[in-house]
Amino acid sequence: MRTVEEHRAAVLRLVGPLSPRCLPVGRGLGLVLAADVVAAVDLPGADNSAMDGYAVRAEELTGAASQSPVFLPVDGDIAAGDSRRHVLSPGHAMRIMTGAPLPDGADAVVPVELTDGGASRVAVRVSPEPGRHLRRRGEDVVAGDILLRAGTRLGPGHLALAAAANVAEVAVHPRPRVAVVSTGDELVPPGSVLEHGQVVDSNHVMLCALVEAAGGEVAGAAHLRDDPLALRRLLDDPPGEPDLLLTSGGVSMGAYDTVKEVLTADGGVEFVRVAMRPGMPQGCGVVGPHQTAIVTLPGNPVSSFVSFHVFVLPALRRMAGLDPDADGSFDAVAATGWSTAPGKVEATRVVEEHGRVRPSGGQGSHVLGALSGATALAIVPAEVDHVEPGDRVRCIPLLGQEPRRAE
Amino acid sequence: MRTVEEHRAAVLRLVGPLSPRCLPVGRGLGLVLAADVVAAVDLPGADNSAMDGYAVRAEELTGAASQSPVFLPVDGDIAAGDSRRHVLSPGHAMRIMTGAPLPDGADAVVPVELTDGGASRVAVRVSPEPGRHLRRRGEDVVAGDILLRAGTRLGPGHLALAAAANVAEVAVHPRPRVAVVSTGDELVPPGSVLEHGQVVDSNHVMLCALVEAAGGEVAGAAHLRDDPLALRRLLDDPPGEPDLLLTSGGVSMGAYDTVKEVLTADGGVEFVRVAMRPGMPQGCGVVGPHQTAIVTLPGNPVSSFVSFHVFVLPALRRMAGLDPDADGSFDAVAATGWSTAPGKVEATRVVEEHGRVRPSGGQGSHVLGALSGATALAIVPAEVDHVEPGDRVRCIPLLGQEPRRAE
Repeated sequence: MRTVEEHRAAVLRLVGPLSPRCLPVGRGLGLVLAADVVAAVDLPGADNSAMDGYAVRAEELTGAASQSPVFLPVDGDIAAGDSRRHVLSPGHAMRIMTGAPLPDGADAVVPVELTDGGASRVAVRVSPEPGRHLRRRGEDVVAGDILLRAGTRLGPGHLALAAAANVAEVAVHPRPRVAVVSTGDELVPPGSVLEHGQVVDSNHVMLCALVEAAGGEVAGAAHLRDDPLALRRLLDDPPGEPDLLLTSGGVSMGAYDTVKEVLTADGGVEFVRVAMRPGMPQGCGVVGPHQTAIVTLPGNPVSSFVSFHVFVLPALRRMAGLDPDADGSFDAVAATGWSTAPGKVEATRVVEEHGRVRPSGGQGSHVLGALSGATALAIVPAEVDHVEPGDRVRCIPLLGQEPRRAE
Repeated sequence: MRTVEEHRAAVLRLVGPLSPRCLPVGRGLGLVLAADVVAAVDLPGADNSAMDGYAVRAEELTGAASQSPVFLPVDGDIAAGDSRRHVLSPGHAMRIMTGAPLPDGADAVVPVELTDGGASRVAVRVSPEPGRHLRRRGEDVVAGDILLRAGTRLGPGHLALAAAANVAEVAVHPRPRVAVVSTGDELVPPGSVLEHGQVVDSNHVMLCALVEAAGGEVAGAAHLRDDPLALRRLLDDPPGEPDLLLTSGGVSMGAYDTVKEVLTADGGVEFVRVAMRPGMPQGCGVVGPHQTAIVTLPGNPVSSFVSFHVFVLPALRRMAGLDPDADGSFDAVAATGWSTAPGKVEATRVVEEHGRVRPSGGQGSHVLGALSGATALAIVPAEVDHVEPGDRVRCIPLLGQEPRRAE
């Protein structure tokens, strides 16, 4: 039997960071930079005022003070965003707003509260040093500066900085495109009238949601009956030309385990038993004319859900340009004890509150109620048969079901 | 001057939870339930096997033991997903897989490891109690059970549970649809050749990204010159018929503050000074024939970014059906000291690491570099002029720029 780490490594070997693509900066949210972003212009782009006040020549105000103000004629206003080129005439002041470009010839700003606020003539009650209350061109960023490093996952603030520095496009790893295929004659869509032995196909909805919650894109989705011919056709031309193909079902040892049967015959995919509960039957490899990476998940929804977090999520992270290991795993303290599978890693569905975890309910691999109430998977090592209250356990947060941060 | 709390309340008064809509369960990811979800069927839908083994009548195995096995003819296999209706003939066993439906007449399963594993005749070495190794119909969920409560933000596990219980549609609050309008003659798109006084419109990219990162949808986006007529036309028919209109720029006291000028003349929007740094000039109200809610943000990108987190995010949360206050705010410890605006709330851009925060760089309202490096806003109360190392400070995590959880 294969260990969890061995199978995780086997899945990760199938994929690498997806080829970078240049996208408009406005489409970069959540994507990972494949190259450094370099400023195209200085920020600020010009000397400008840090205060509402008056643009002046400092030397013309030598000796100005509360008791001996210097009077200057005011030669107009400059607002933020004023794109005219102003020149400050010697012996004059100009009214200037915060962020407005400094007129040529000025070398300081006097805040309005240190003047009488005059509109045509201003009494200045202070003698400023040259450079006072100015924001200098390039004081935040200089053209050519590296603004953002390759590997950064782009958030709104990163995009604002890149855009402000006049960067139109960023080189990013695209979202991994995943095709999701559930298999099984017994599966019917939600809302069907169920006949004997029919089961609602919840894996379809669940795996598509997991792909999206992991930052991937559902390239295509399909349900297949247990029909070797239909499966072969699909493998020849996976829906949506995906970067990764995910199947669920048909991989254990039943009479109708079509996925295993067809892929074993075709080669390229290895089917293994992984020492994990739930989620023992696993497979991975490459299929079809494009050698598309494939991960075959068990059909049981709870097993499939756990397997996605343990094996597929790291692969999607690597494809997106992220570190597969930095998945947000955290240590928590067991608030209660529970028994786990001897000799297997157990992925216990737990609820985390303030750093403490407890099983979220029944842990049978068929129990979806408890899965839905969980916020994390506690990954209990194979050599542990029983978690004691107070034990430290490693946890993977559930995609889209993380608790809010502690208050 | 208005307090931050007063203005936040004024913005929140403009919006309520958006009218619920029924969506296919597969489209519910990230949305908030507007009504409880009730199971349409039992889970499991039928009694089934918890083990790979043999379906039997328990009473026929009385006295079976290692030394005195009972032999039964094997009457075929039942795989998981087998939808035929099987009947167990008296005096027989049937091979059964984990999850496969129990044949009529059987009342227990004997695990394969407690037999000789025979295919046509099996030697059973144990006398099972009735009900042993069965999963009972409805043992996880009974039709009519409330599966998920109104107010739940739907994750993959919730969707799996609803789908499995044969729920085809869920009633959810839709994503808030937001139109983003940046204003200013000086603004040009990223990648332009900049002329004197021109500035790249980073607010457009930034605000669209913030809306998406907050779970909203960009209904439309536009850039307007400082032209009252163009603004009036836009207000009459905001792009994309949004639930909320966001503008940036044109709200301070410059000569070209078109947004303030037009909206003040039209009424319905109040412009105020909020005791916050950055982000003092604010406005909110309703505009146009549909009385669309509007928030007017300052044009300075850093001020706009901060104002979005403090005033717009709570409104989007309320519209989405979430608690506006449960925004993930957390207490952190100041790793260093810093000065803040006297008499104003200061939103310091900080980096959080392991529960400790420090300013991420220059805090001038024009400094985008520091904004881009930040992971949270420390909200320092108006009565605090200086944060001391070790002080506890309340922080809002930045959308899309949260740090990974502590290891």
